[in-house]
Amino acid sequence: MSSGRLLKRVLVGRRISSDKLDETLLPKKIALPVFASDALSSVAYAPDEILLTLGLAGGAIALTHSWEIALAVATVMIVVVLSYRQNVHAYPSGGGDYEVASVNLGPRAGLTVASALVVDYVLTVAVSVSSGVQNAASAFEFLRGHEALAAGLVVLALTTMNLRGVRESGRSFAIPTYLFMLAVLGMTIVGGIRRSMGDLPAAESAELSLAPQEGYEQLGTFAMAFLLLRAFSSGAAALTGVESISNGVPAFQKPKSRNAATTLLLMGIIAVTMLLSMVTLANWTGVHFVDDPANQLLKDGVPVGEGYVQDTVMGQVAKAVFSGFTPGVILISVVTALILVLAANTAFNGFPVLGSILAKDGYLPRQLHTRGDRLAFSNGILILGAAAVVLIVIYDAEVTKLIQLYIVGVFISFTLSQTGMVRHWNRHLAVAKDNQVRRRMYRSRAINALGALMSGTVLVVVVITKFAHGAGFALAAMVLVFLLMRAIRRHYDRVSEELAVAEDDTSMRLRPSRVHAIVLVSKIHKPTLRALAYAAATRPARLEAVTVDVEKDDTSALQAEWVRRGIPIELKSLASPYREVTRPVVDYVRSIRSGNPRDLVVVYIPQYVLGHWWEQILHNQSALRLRTRLLFTPGVMVSLVPWQLVSSEGMEDRLDGPVAGDVRRGEG
Amino acid sequence: MSSGRLLKRVLVGRRISSDKLDETLLPKKIALPVFASDALSSVAYAPDEILLTLGLAGGAIALTHSWEIALAVATVMIVVVLSYRQNVHAYPSGGGDYEVASVNLGPRAGLTVASALVVDYVLTVAVSVSSGVQNAASAFEFLRGHEALAAGLVVLALTTMNLRGVRESGRSFAIPTYLFMLAVLGMTIVGGIRRSMGDLPAAESAELSLAPQEGYEQLGTFAMAFLLLRAFSSGAAALTGVESISNGVPAFQKPKSRNAATTLLLMGIIAVTMLLSMVTLANWTGVHFVDDPANQLLKDGVPVGEGYVQDTVMGQVAKAVFSGFTPGVILISVVTALILVLAANTAFNGFPVLGSILAKDGYLPRQLHTRGDRLAFSNGILILGAAAVVLIVIYDAEVTKLIQLYIVGVFISFTLSQTGMVRHWNRHLAVAKDNQVRRRMYRSRAINALGALMSGTVLVVVVITKFAHGAGFALAAMVLVFLLMRAIRRHYDRVSEELAVAEDDTSMRLRPSRVHAIVLVSKIHKPTLRALAYAAATRPARLEAVTVDVEKDDTSALQAEWVRRGIPIELKSLASPYREVTRPVVDYVRSIRSGNPRDLVVVYIPQYVLGHWWEQILHNQSALRLRTRLLFTPGVMVSLVPWQLVSSEGMEDRLDGPVAGDVRRGEG
Repeated sequence: MSSGRLLKRVLVGRRISSDKLDETLLPKKIALPVFASDALSSVAYAPDEILLTLGLAGGAIALTHSWEIALAVATVMIVVVLSYRQNVHAYPSGGGDYEVASVNLGPRAGLTVASALVVDYVLTVAVSVSSGVQNAASAFEFLRGHEALAAGLVVLALTTMNLRGVRESGRSFAIPTYLFMLAVLGMTIVGGIRRSMGDLPAAESAELSLAPQEGYEQLGTFAMAFLLLRAFSSGAAALTGVESISNGVPAFQKPKSRNAATTLLLMGIIAVTMLLSMVTLANWTGVHFVDDPANQLLKDGVPVGEGYVQDTVMGQVAKAVFSGFTPGVILISVVTALILVLAANTAFNGFPVLGSILAKDGYLPRQLHTRGDRLAFSNGILILGAAAVVLIVIYDAEVTKLIQLYIVGVFISFTLSQTGMVRHWNRHLAVAKDNQVRRRMYRSRAINALGALMSGTVLVVVVITKFAHGAGFALAAMVLVFLLMRAIRRHYDRVSEELAVAEDDTSMRLRPSRVHAIVLVSKIHKPTLRALAYAAATRPARLEAVTVDVEKDDTSALQAEWVRRGIPIELKSLASPYREVTRPVVDYVRSIRSGNPRDLVVVYIPQYVLGHWWEQILHNQSALRLRTRLLFTPGVMVSLVPWQLVSSEGMEDRLDGPVAGDVRRGEG
Repeated sequence: MSSGRLLKRVLVGRRISSDKLDETLLPKKIALPVFASDALSSVAYAPDEILLTLGLAGGAIALTHSWEIALAVATVMIVVVLSYRQNVHAYPSGGGDYEVASVNLGPRAGLTVASALVVDYVLTVAVSVSSGVQNAASAFEFLRGHEALAAGLVVLALTTMNLRGVRESGRSFAIPTYLFMLAVLGMTIVGGIRRSMGDLPAAESAELSLAPQEGYEQLGTFAMAFLLLRAFSSGAAALTGVESISNGVPAFQKPKSRNAATTLLLMGIIAVTMLLSMVTLANWTGVHFVDDPANQLLKDGVPVGEGYVQDTVMGQVAKAVFSGFTPGVILISVVTALILVLAANTAFNGFPVLGSILAKDGYLPRQLHTRGDRLAFSNGILILGAAAVVLIVIYDAEVTKLIQLYIVGVFISFTLSQTGMVRHWNRHLAVAKDNQVRRRMYRSRAINALGALMSGTVLVVVVITKFAHGAGFALAAMVLVFLLMRAIRRHYDRVSEELAVAEDDTSMRLRPSRVHAIVLVSKIHKPTLRALAYAAATRPARLEAVTVDVEKDDTSALQAEWVRRGIPIELKSLASPYREVTRPVVDYVRSIRSGNPRDLVVVYIPQYVLGHWWEQILHNQSALRLRTRLLFTPGVMVSLVPWQLVSSEGMEDRLDGPVAGDVRRGEG
């Protein structure tokens, strides 16, 4: 074993073959943090968005209505979770929303869901990392004013990590996720005890009063309703990531579907609890969180101005609950930032899995399907990272602005998936006989119908209330992705049609009558002699060596050496009036073909193999060009005769490694 | 003929073969502008640099001494021109300074010259374009404040043009160069007439007085001498480009050397005349040109301040001479800018020629040697353009700063070349018998010795006076280029040693005993059937089809179809527990080889050929990876069986075109 491979085995562990896969499947207690970090982490920004939107109208509206909005979001969350439990049972293969929509509503709906998911992965990275940096800034003041830079660097770090093939591991998810849950619930308990003892202090911002933003001073009933709906839309960000378990069923221990459904329910309960806890705590401590703190927050009737620093709701609540106990505040801040970065990392792991499924269906380049094609995965990871950085820079890492783009895609896939599930049950009900089974199906259909109705309603609300604020951009991006994927699929279909063989095709029996072998020679060195030997070994009908006469002196020297060494094969020299290499060879090959169209011409190209990319740059370029040109010439086969140079040894070790998304596919 | 090729022929003209080359060679009247634009254009910035350096001391020093400095520069120029006339006769092959230094002083000296030339090409682009933009700004005010941007865009345009294969043509050079000569000489004549009539107005800046720059208030004799030498060093910028005719001898009509020598002399006379004319005009009109106009120029004893706009000397002189006649001013400005851009373009044409010579000697990637390798030339052009843009951005397109880096390299190659010529004559004198010939050689040697002495002195002066101002950076860059080229050469030497065949080598006779053919199958389509047919046509000792069992279902379907179609070749399925394609194939090939080490394994890879790069991205990636891996495996030959798809037709037309540097190499 080479030292490189040894090192890899020490670091990454032994490779696991398909038979042993069962051993690496995830128990519920590990699957929960792996798949729930995205959904749970949104509790770090969803309450902020609710308060902020309500706060546009000024006064006490935010504090009085935030509870109602949070309850509405929680209701939707519970319905969606219950709906997805049906998905998990019906589609245990892990295709998720894309599979459900494709199978039940047709490929167009499937592709719509896929486009929405692709855009959402990018937004997950941008939103989670931005929010993570903002939360970290509550404890680490030096980050303020450099949020975009810090967020960009975090994305860069995630991208690099994933490019290098660092794999998700259950433990790396379990610890921060459970810590986050414990921290938030602990904070709620401490807050509850302190409140019951009348000892809970108000948040720093509680003493301030709230001015409405320009244009929101006098809201009529309709405008007020619209604002409430908009707040609800923003709060619905808490639902992002709920679907991820339905993509991960194959990674669960058996019974897969039941375990996945249980985990999903557990996640829903925890998420709802945490969301309501946060909103409650915010109300108890009187937190104010607004869009434009400098002008909207008033101290004794005067705006606080640009100097005011607005912490996240999580930060403000922590400072109130743990007043006088700084380690508590820092813990909350660190753990929150950590889980948000982890949530961003799930996108880096989820994207390759989705890409692999889409590639299998011909919507993305096929090499994305093959596990272990590092190059393809690398491109996916680079695109994801780059797109997220672009978004972060454009929106200056402001979560509030990014959120506007985020939720559309999520609810497009929820709605189509749940609608698909209704169709699924309809289809199955048409053939199911057993009464008990039918009853269960009716129940499932009712749940999914409710889910579809509710997600559809939310989708409409989101699009209406947020279109002008950014949801329009997100939709445009989805359309673009949709069109691109459809174009790729069409291309594959066209090629596949062109290559198809009719059942009665006899072309295999159309064997070329004779083989004419040509060995290209530029110099007499070891690769050339090997090529001559290999060509001779195939016993062609005719064998000749060919050189291109680019410089008279070189050619004469070559011919003299050829004769001196007594090489028993004719060396033909091709004239090259334009000092080219490629064209004379191509023309010569064509002339052979046109004389004997049923002959096969085999061109042997000696080629030496080097170990480093920079060495490759220095060699073989004209051979490469010639090979490319010859492949465009009908009736020709190109045979590469490699000569391995010393530097090529050990090269093979550098070509393998783990790939992002393995754990989610149950391929840990 | 395809429409693409037809269009090309209409636009570019018929391709010319080696026999017809004579017809495209350049007559003197065209060769002069082609090769002299670089040298003549320096008259647009050399006088500025002389005045500016002298002006550091303030007062009237600039006007009193500029004439002396200009005369000194003109003297050096004449000596250098006379010296290079000897080079042109002795080395008509166009290798220029690199060849002369290599042949006479050894490869290390040659490589030093080459490094200096490479760095100088970059500086030619940066300096010429920057100066061009500054001159254009005299007439087009809107360019002021955006010089770096404008210069960057011009370099970008030149790069794009040269990448697209626009070729130098004699006429495109002749018109602007002759116009520039006429314009400058015309301006001198008009100025002379107006002065003799007492009617020549003073330049705008003449009424201002000059304060010395900080640190230059009280200069001792030594400091004053140093300042004069520095001014001389700056003025020596007028000599850049003088050597270019010695690189271009092969492009001249016969008798090549004599014509080249005559053209060189002509160029020298014109350059000296123009330089002295400009300095005379500057003196007559009392032009002030200083490093720091805001503080150094005083109006009634008070600095003119940041608002003052300082035109180039060319611009100031033109405004005085053509006072009241704006078209004259604009003409001078436009023509000057044009010839400077043309001078920059010569670097884009000269660089590939130098690269081709260096590549032939193994100092640069070998593909640079082959004419017509567009990819390699493109890389050279991109590197040249990018490096020039970087310099322009760093130095904010300020000619005065860029000049400091420029002149070192020029005089390194002058000095080494002339020293080499002295050695050349020594060698020839040792064998020459004829007295008349010997006399001529003595004369030539004396001229070259004078040239070497003078360039060497200038080099020392330049390095001493300018080291801290930027020449140090230029030297560092040259050392870097030197080391890189030496490393490349060492790599080639090492590989060539490894590949060399001993005279008594019999490896060609070590023919593999049997051929074991393997056809890779992923699907049954036309390329697969063709690969099977071709493989069968070579009549191997053993022939089998092989597929990798990545997904059970796909493999079973393939095997069923194989049987149904009655394909008369065994289909073997390789297990792939890790769902990979490459490793099982490589392992299988190795197992065959280890059983029969004298066998040759030929792997046939069906491959379809598409016309567009974006189509290539969507296909063949796993075949490409497999091919690469197999080439690292000893005892294997890889045979590519192409299947040309409809979109590949007409592809060949897109692969040719003219290449930068053709005219200079006499390959028009």
